Amino acid sequence: MLSTTPRTQLGRLKQRGSADRDDLYEVLDTGLVCHLGVVVDGHPMVVPTGYGRVGETLYLHGSTGARSLRAADGAEVCLTVTHVDGIVLARSVFHHSVNYRSAVVYGRARQVTDEDERLEGLRAVTEQLAPGQWDYARQPSRKELAATAVLALSLEEASVKIRTGGPGDDEEDYELPVWAGVLPLVTSWGVPVPDPLLREGIGVPVHIGGRR
Amino acid sequence: MLSTTPRTQLGRLKQRGSADRDDLYEVLDTGLVCHLGVVVDGHPMVVPTGYGRVGETLYLHGSTGARSLRAADGAEVCLTVTHVDGIVLARSVFHHSVNYRSAVVYGRARQVTDEDERLEGLRAVTEQLAPGQWDYARQPSRKELAATAVLALSLEEASVKIRTGGPGDDEEDYELPVWAGVLPLVTSWGVPVPDPLLREGIGVPVHIGGRR
Repeated sequence: MLSTTPRTQLGRLKQRGSADRDDLYEVLDTGLVCHLGVVVDGHPMVVPTGYGRVGETLYLHGSTGARSLRAADGAEVCLTVTHVDGIVLARSVFHHSVNYRSAVVYGRARQVTDEDERLEGLRAVTEQLAPGQWDYARQPSRKELAATAVLALSLEEASVKIRTGGPGDDEEDYELPVWAGVLPLVTSWGVPVPDPLLREGIGVPVHIGGRR
Repeated sequence: MLSTTPRTQLGRLKQRGSADRDDLYEVLDTGLVCHLGVVVDGHPMVVPTGYGRVGETLYLHGSTGARSLRAADGAEVCLTVTHVDGIVLARSVFHHSVNYRSAVVYGRARQVTDEDERLEGLRAVTEQLAPGQWDYARQPSRKELAATAVLALSLEEASVKIRTGGPGDDEEDYELPVWAGVLPLVTSWGVPVPDPLLREGIGVPVHIGGRR
């Protein structure tokens, strides 16, 4: 069960909320970037950034100089991951909608200082975007690690919303001569494009090419 | 030229910033949902939501009861639209990146009260998700309009960031026996799925089926 706080208790459309922890993990684990919200000088700032999950903790990373990470350090943040699965076309404009899955996590971001946890966090962020790359590519040097901030965010206060299926029209609109249904949005991997500077004789590894 | 303020002046990686207004429009006009950041009780809140553009104004809509819209009304917001175009696989973990296009808009959201502008805003939000549907489906009734809040956000303070191309590795890493390049992410429309309750004899209109 997801914890319910005034912020994660869904105000509207409660049927779209899911108390299933597995749904939360699924939405987070299949995302590529999140949108991180922080407050800077009293105003909201929302930036797209990578993330990774280890158990009940999300990790973020970035340059030690990045404004959004500096603002997030030790502060309340909101991290949102959204998948758009399709456009819901109703018989009335009013009932148009989007099929989507989204996770929203609230909490105080914690600067990670323990070296083992920092590496674990960076590994998670890398593997979220590019599974298999942490062990395949050159791992961070001491200097690179020093230039990288790692933040942790607990999944304690999180909610997930999922909308699926066709439109829900008003009773009287079902008679209209208007097509209704869902236009699915499909996301897929393309053909890997080698770096022009790639050394000869290095093929695409299975953990990259096999994602298609 | 995009206006530059302390918030939209890119702190890092300035080469990823673009002062091209056309880039901003392109990123906004090809998006499906934005991530809207508001401050609620001093804490950030980030929700995915639809939007639309008319000239130099973005429009948002939602139920008059929606918490995020209530928090945005008359308040400073941050609206971010992100496209992920591919994963940049470098020879070192450190130089892994994402090819993306993102727009960030800051400003005070204004509740739209003029009925003509409200309709124009709702039309823009509908057409952003589903071009052609405003004129095809049943337009909002007086009752539906009364239940819908429309907010406007000026594009005065906006920035756009675009990353394209392959990895930039450290000089000494080019000799590593590691594949490097870009794994493109492709987004496309699937086959329209009719509502099970669709009346017989209504085909998929060209403005929907033709998006593939």
